[in-house]
Amino acid sequence: MPMTCSEVESAKNDRQSLTKAVPDISDYLEAKRLLIDNHLQAALRLSDGCPGNLVEAMGYGLLAPGKRLRPILVVMAAEACGGRDIEAMPAACAVEMVHAYSLIHDDLPSMDDDDLRRGQPTCHKKFGEALAILAGDALLTLAFQVLTEGYPPTTAAASCRHLAIGAGAAGMVGGQVLDLTSDPNSEADLEDLQSIHDCKTGALFRACLQLGAWSALGETPGGPDPAILKSLDGFGRCFGLLFQITDDLLDVEGNADETGKRVGKDAARGKLTYPGLLGLAESRRRAAELADRAQQHLTPFGPHGKRLAALVPFILERKR
Amino acid sequence: MPMTCSEVESAKNDRQSLTKAVPDISDYLEAKRLLIDNHLQAALRLSDGCPGNLVEAMGYGLLAPGKRLRPILVVMAAEACGGRDIEAMPAACAVEMVHAYSLIHDDLPSMDDDDLRRGQPTCHKKFGEALAILAGDALLTLAFQVLTEGYPPTTAAASCRHLAIGAGAAGMVGGQVLDLTSDPNSEADLEDLQSIHDCKTGALFRACLQLGAWSALGETPGGPDPAILKSLDGFGRCFGLLFQITDDLLDVEGNADETGKRVGKDAARGKLTYPGLLGLAESRRRAAELADRAQQHLTPFGPHGKRLAALVPFILERKR
Repeated sequence: MPMTCSEVESAKNDRQSLTKAVPDISDYLEAKRLLIDNHLQAALRLSDGCPGNLVEAMGYGLLAPGKRLRPILVVMAAEACGGRDIEAMPAACAVEMVHAYSLIHDDLPSMDDDDLRRGQPTCHKKFGEALAILAGDALLTLAFQVLTEGYPPTTAAASCRHLAIGAGAAGMVGGQVLDLTSDPNSEADLEDLQSIHDCKTGALFRACLQLGAWSALGETPGGPDPAILKSLDGFGRCFGLLFQITDDLLDVEGNADETGKRVGKDAARGKLTYPGLLGLAESRRRAAELADRAQQHLTPFGPHGKRLAALVPFILERKR
Repeated sequence: MPMTCSEVESAKNDRQSLTKAVPDISDYLEAKRLLIDNHLQAALRLSDGCPGNLVEAMGYGLLAPGKRLRPILVVMAAEACGGRDIEAMPAACAVEMVHAYSLIHDDLPSMDDDDLRRGQPTCHKKFGEALAILAGDALLTLAFQVLTEGYPPTTAAASCRHLAIGAGAAGMVGGQVLDLTSDPNSEADLEDLQSIHDCKTGALFRACLQLGAWSALGETPGGPDPAILKSLDGFGRCFGLLFQITDDLLDVEGNADETGKRVGKDAARGKLTYPGLLGLAESRRRAAELADRAQQHLTPFGPHGKRLAALVPFILERKR
């Protein structure tokens, strides 16, 4: 049943007060980004003594300026579960390593063939293809090492499992395959597009949220409450699609200075996008709807969930 | 102190009786290979529902005919620790997935640029580069999933850690980097060559042995005895170098029909090899010496270690 006007207005006020409750979301994100970057640098030192050019290429991909959105999701999920950011750091580092590896491999000539990433030459442009592939492989592998060295066995094993499922053939890698092999001339529909992004970006987002919960509650008797894990998963599904729609919108509306990458490249390649399929106005409407639904999944977390809730309008309105 | 002639003779007789005690090593290897192949097929079904072309490429790389030496090492180490082959299967599948991924990536045009592997076209020749890279990524990721779904948390976490260390920047990936970037015109010595292979092949062999021990003893109070793990590691170091020397010898002396891959390719590329550095006779002598030393590390296992011991002369005398 559709909401009445007054209900819509009331929901809008709720959201605004939610955002007002954490007016410092930008400061918060910046503080966590710095914390995460420090821990990423420390985690990379696990590779001390390894071939120098490999470690350099790994660091180039991993430490390049970025939003650190995935590790921040880990931290926010941990905090929503009553945990502390410091406990979330191994998981935060692991998901950023997986993200960095995926960017390195996606940028390769045989895949998206990109020269520019996060405002600098892509890894293979700087180090050559062979070293870029191997740096990606090593970062993916290091992610699992970091989890097993950062957590007690129960949390480590659950985290490795969620990360593998989110990153693998049923998740991120599968999504990249769907994206690469989707035929731009075929009659693709919204369902196809959604299933690509559910895998390609959504699955890793959802893994981030599960890892955050496990970092906070993994060693409590019985581990995290399944209902809590399910709520985070529901949030992650909406958040992932919201992120992808805003990403597609930025590709049309953004500029390279702000986004740090080429814009209009999806359209130029005839890639399936939300604005291409639905138009700009309907894409923006869907994004707002997903933002609403994402926030609804956070009800069970009460005040602990406010940071995660505040991230939603931040992503909805992002310029990069 | 060098052994006297009679000591050498006696050690030789010991080894012969060791091999005679398991006259059926070929039958044993064939039986385990079939068991492992069945479990690999089953493990790949974790990817049911994933994009069909990705799963096909993963299966093409993973299920291609092979010796399954790494998973057999897992099984043998488990049996040396008093465990059963069936308990070793998740770990056996995981290490073969890592091995298969490494072959797919190593064969890529930007790396070794090979067209033929295990007697059939390499993965990128059949599926294209993009899908080959992603199939490798997915197999590496699946390896960790298989460990977390196959074992209780303590064993799963320890196994993921050993696998990550063996496969990553300090191990297999690092070794591939050293191998790719070693300058054939420089004055490389035996130490350089040894450190390449300690990483490139040795580290994953050593991980196999650790995983085998964990699969057998991971849930016993306190886990596997550190002395046992150390003995297996010592065995692995010798076995890994023995394997590499025999691999180099086969590249010179073998033929493509028996080995299933191009021969003479290392020499053609000016790659650093044992025969190239030491000559054939000295390479063979070193191999025999390593075989002796490998078997000495198995003393603590008593009769349980006989299968593992019997593998040593089998590798020393292999034709493929």
